Amino acid sequence: MYEIARLAGVSQSTVSRVLAGNTFVAPEKYAAVMEVVERLNYRPNMAAQGLVNGRTSAIGILTRSLGSPFYGELLRGIAVGLQGSSFSPVISMGSEKPNEDLNAVNFLLSRRVDALILLYSNTLTDDYIREIAAETPLVVIGRSVPNLEEQCVYMNNFSGAYTAVAYLISKGHQGIAHITGSMDTPDANDRRAGYIQALIDHQIEPDPELIIEGDFAETSGQLAVDKLLSIRDAHPFSAIFAANDQTAMGVRLALYHRQIDVPNDISLMGYDDLSSSQYMTPPLTTIRQPVYYMGLMASKAVLAAMDGKEFHLPEFPGELVVRQSVSIAGGYRKS
Amino acid sequence: MYEIARLAGVSQSTVSRVLAGNTFVAPEKYAAVMEVVERLNYRPNMAAQGLVNGRTSAIGILTRSLGSPFYGELLRGIAVGLQGSSFSPVISMGSEKPNEDLNAVNFLLSRRVDALILLYSNTLTDDYIREIAAETPLVVIGRSVPNLEEQCVYMNNFSGAYTAVAYLISKGHQGIAHITGSMDTPDANDRRAGYIQALIDHQIEPDPELIIEGDFAETSGQLAVDKLLSIRDAHPFSAIFAANDQTAMGVRLALYHRQIDVPNDISLMGYDDLSSSQYMTPPLTTIRQPVYYMGLMASKAVLAAMDGKEFHLPEFPGELVVRQSVSIAGGYRKS
Repeated sequence: MYEIARLAGVSQSTVSRVLAGNTFVAPEKYAAVMEVVERLNYRPNMAAQGLVNGRTSAIGILTRSLGSPFYGELLRGIAVGLQGSSFSPVISMGSEKPNEDLNAVNFLLSRRVDALILLYSNTLTDDYIREIAAETPLVVIGRSVPNLEEQCVYMNNFSGAYTAVAYLISKGHQGIAHITGSMDTPDANDRRAGYIQALIDHQIEPDPELIIEGDFAETSGQLAVDKLLSIRDAHPFSAIFAANDQTAMGVRLALYHRQIDVPNDISLMGYDDLSSSQYMTPPLTTIRQPVYYMGLMASKAVLAAMDGKEFHLPEFPGELVVRQSVSIAGGYRKS
Repeated sequence: MYEIARLAGVSQSTVSRVLAGNTFVAPEKYAAVMEVVERLNYRPNMAAQGLVNGRTSAIGILTRSLGSPFYGELLRGIAVGLQGSSFSPVISMGSEKPNEDLNAVNFLLSRRVDALILLYSNTLTDDYIREIAAETPLVVIGRSVPNLEEQCVYMNNFSGAYTAVAYLISKGHQGIAHITGSMDTPDANDRRAGYIQALIDHQIEPDPELIIEGDFAETSGQLAVDKLLSIRDAHPFSAIFAANDQTAMGVRLALYHRQIDVPNDISLMGYDDLSSSQYMTPPLTTIRQPVYYMGLMASKAVLAAMDGKEFHLPEFPGELVVRQSVSIAGGYRKS
């Protein structure tokens, strides 16, 4: 591009505009660029090329969020996975509303992306995803689509939550509260189910009062602490299992403000292992979702699929990361 | 298009508007069109449309990072700013290497984006950015390009750092250490300069030993604490000004592990006000960069520019956010 600009005596961005078929370029500049382009037999612009040979060197990514630590790490894994390839990520943001997810996917497909990676697109139907998959290399992160399992990257949230709660029980905790995620997501439901099953399997009767509905955000953790402390005499607990690390962060702050020590007064367990969780004080004990690695693997899988190669997505088990926010149960000390 | 209109029982222009992502369509008509679109598995080819009418309904965004909390909030602001418009973000990732930034911009231009938002693209030259700006609606976030200032969104890092250090001095601190950011960025240089000037203006001689080079990442804060504590007898200090909140988070953890209390033993000041900083324990006193809002304003500005409207980017001063990580200086207590 630089060579064309130099030979034509115009700026590189002028060359870009001409190659892109843009007409807002002075006619003499346009002519100069086209003369050089023809002389060098330079490739036409990628959009036009895409119309001819179906390649646009872009991977479409549908995400539900850009700002959260969780999606940030996922997107970073995807971007790093594409580095060194000739493909760039084109990111479009859907939302919890079905039409916006559909619009975002159609936007990406209409831009002739070569492949798609869908992140936690819970509002798209299984049928719709299978239809796209029949025509476009596709990887789905965060859910399992029947008959498409080998293209799906997801965690067993039930077993991850079960592991978390079994660990708390092994430390002597009997009263274990749970702050759920958004109950319109399969992740939150599966984690709550794993929590309940672990209690039952260890002869602890689940107490519905100790299950507080949250929404995966920090503030829901703060609010849940208020509720839990207000009922603690009738429903004692010595540990809190938060549905994700962001919720645990809100819990941590609420306890700090009340001068309740973590872990000596209340033990705290998260879920995700966000990169910031190791910097919490105390560092958070949690279930590791290898979010970054899941994104990386998704990229490698779509690249392999476009090369016509087989790919195998590894299993992503929830792994217990023991840090310092859980201690042996000593019972809740009344202040 | 005609077929869709016929099957959906709406006008062709309604179909056009729905496919263009325009939301000013009656909900039942919208649903009818989308139902047919899904049934026919129809995908408008916007790339082809773009070649014809020069509109592709995309804003190209060049970012240096996807995974960090800082860039995450910036991108979220941009995405929210575009919601309700007919434009979607197309994100491409550059890097610290000049060619990769250039490649990323060319990739975006070749995809016929209607406008560009450049985030902290420090490796692109002023000349190059002015050339692009001559032909494409453009907003630059995170740096000031001469003769293009009104299209630039940036903070005065010198005055932000000056405010931070003057506040620490007002609390009685005299020994104030500084952990810098990456010194190849203007932000880090300006913040260090503001730190030094504030000391000088308050008759405190800057001590080069108390300035530790970091890189804006948490680990650099942890390492800096090791260095600072090893020289504390000869170079006493009671406060640390970290070049950003992520660095402050690393500092906080290192002090926690050494059972040094924040703020009673050492006061801690950050820079950025990331959304997670309010959840640190203690909540972090810091300089607020309205990162999310800067992204939002950048989007509004490019939308206005494409409509041929004037836009005015507000000034973004660094604002002191007082929380609980800074106390009145009591001197460092040896353990």
